[in-house]
Amino acid sequence: MLTVLKRIQPYIHRTPVLTCATLDQMSGASLFFKCENFQKMGAFKMRGAANAILQLTEEERKLGVATHSSGNFAQALALSAQMLGIPAYIVMPSNSPEVKKAAVRGYGGEIIECEPNLAARESTLAQVVERTGATFIHPFNDGNVIMGQGTAALELLHDVPNLDVIISPVGGGGLLSGTALAAKETSPKTKVWAAEPAGASDAWESKKSGKIIPQLNPQTIADGLRTSLGDKTWPIIRDHVERVVLVEEAEIVEALRLLMERMKIVVEPSGAVALAAVLKDKTAVAGKRVGIILSGGNVDLKAIAALL
Amino acid sequence: MLTVLKRIQPYIHRTPVLTCATLDQMSGASLFFKCENFQKMGAFKMRGAANAILQLTEEERKLGVATHSSGNFAQALALSAQMLGIPAYIVMPSNSPEVKKAAVRGYGGEIIECEPNLAARESTLAQVVERTGATFIHPFNDGNVIMGQGTAALELLHDVPNLDVIISPVGGGGLLSGTALAAKETSPKTKVWAAEPAGASDAWESKKSGKIIPQLNPQTIADGLRTSLGDKTWPIIRDHVERVVLVEEAEIVEALRLLMERMKIVVEPSGAVALAAVLKDKTAVAGKRVGIILSGGNVDLKAIAALL
Repeated sequence: MLTVLKRIQPYIHRTPVLTCATLDQMSGASLFFKCENFQKMGAFKMRGAANAILQLTEEERKLGVATHSSGNFAQALALSAQMLGIPAYIVMPSNSPEVKKAAVRGYGGEIIECEPNLAARESTLAQVVERTGATFIHPFNDGNVIMGQGTAALELLHDVPNLDVIISPVGGGGLLSGTALAAKETSPKTKVWAAEPAGASDAWESKKSGKIIPQLNPQTIADGLRTSLGDKTWPIIRDHVERVVLVEEAEIVEALRLLMERMKIVVEPSGAVALAAVLKDKTAVAGKRVGIILSGGNVDLKAIAALL
Repeated sequence: MLTVLKRIQPYIHRTPVLTCATLDQMSGASLFFKCENFQKMGAFKMRGAANAILQLTEEERKLGVATHSSGNFAQALALSAQMLGIPAYIVMPSNSPEVKKAAVRGYGGEIIECEPNLAARESTLAQVVERTGATFIHPFNDGNVIMGQGTAALELLHDVPNLDVIISPVGGGGLLSGTALAAKETSPKTKVWAAEPAGASDAWESKKSGKIIPQLNPQTIADGLRTSLGDKTWPIIRDHVERVVLVEEAEIVEALRLLMERMKIVVEPSGAVALAAVLKDKTAVAGKRVGIILSGGNVDLKAIAALL
């Protein structure tokens, strides 16, 4: 994975690891926060997007890349493509917030709108790929994307050796499976846990039943974590993630508030979920050295203001 | 000043310096943000408080320290004293917000309330010093406090050499005069500028007239910058600060919003004033390497939510 990190290093920030005496005291553990909210475009997704694009041949790059996403991966792919001077085609549901469309355009991405359902998204993407010859990069269910996302944990383990646990939020599982691979390779004694909203508990259900259970009707403010696992992320999570901790919505909001009030940082709800897990299960982390991946910081400040 | 930094190092955080491509683009300059909002207890005031206490003799320390402040210096002195195991007596106006009193108590400070006027504050402080034998530490008009505050700029200049300008907010002038001394000693070519709210423009008035003009009726949300300069901070500012940039209230709020939205950090209004100055006077900073001291992050999130 070090090869991956070296490959993407010119395109990403090495984000800082912050600590907070108050949160250590509240949790009874030593917490190390990997601040991917400070990553370029505001989330870890830059890592996977950059790695996937950099693996393409010169010929493939010329034709560009395409994906379907209304979230951080859309911006990450657009910005990575812009840095390399190649086109990025982003399929977005027509009801995506204008601010998200503006962000993708701001990074030079070309938006192709579709009806807001899975069938329209997939057929529109197929048409775009057919028309342009662009390479489809899946937001998380892709080996290169997974390896890229894992570099956040790799940097964390390098900066803070001997972590007992790393906790990552889980949506589609790109960050979580990458984190698990990073720990396996660099620090096999470090356990990897997932934090997941109780209102989008497919990873928890999947781990319990030993097979992928899709997420049907997610209900959570953590909009990055509403996705189902993929067939490439699931086996890694099944085999290398020790446990999934479920957290309630009020616990996510409280974690968000603590991160702003005590650590003075802005984190998106999905990013606050790992801290919520630590504060929920203090017995499990007591006395331990715990890495927490704060996955991103792209929030609508008005929405956050309303939550608090 | 390196001696000062070495003295206080065990008691403070070495805060990170962050950059932001978007804000560089908006300002036309290369901006380097010294994040004292991540300092212990949330503001640079820890540096000066720790330095002042550490200069006391063993005998003096036993009797403790005292100050009058309802802001960050009250918390900084209480926490510094707690770390050294000595008493801290904090004179606070009886109408101080409960949350500020709770913070001082949380750091082990003993609060002595007084009527909310200058005469009561000074007489109450005199009584406390008389009764306890504690040493009075002024929040900013004190050589050791000034030198301590300057260590933020010292670290910044060490991490980012060849800055053309450093901009610090100015209230009583402790941070600004310390910054000027740090630059003078370490990087004489670096200019030091002040950023000040137009509604509390005593530093600007003082520079213009060449003598201290007291701040009579400050009107600004930047509550840390409502104070008048002192007779120890003023001569340093007069001689070593090149200019004072005035900013309007709306510009402070906009800077605050950009820091949250683009840099994902929480900064108090006083801390956002230096960024507001850069964005106001883009011609002056065009193409320059500019250090910005984000002085603190202790905000009432509800108040911030209302502002945005």
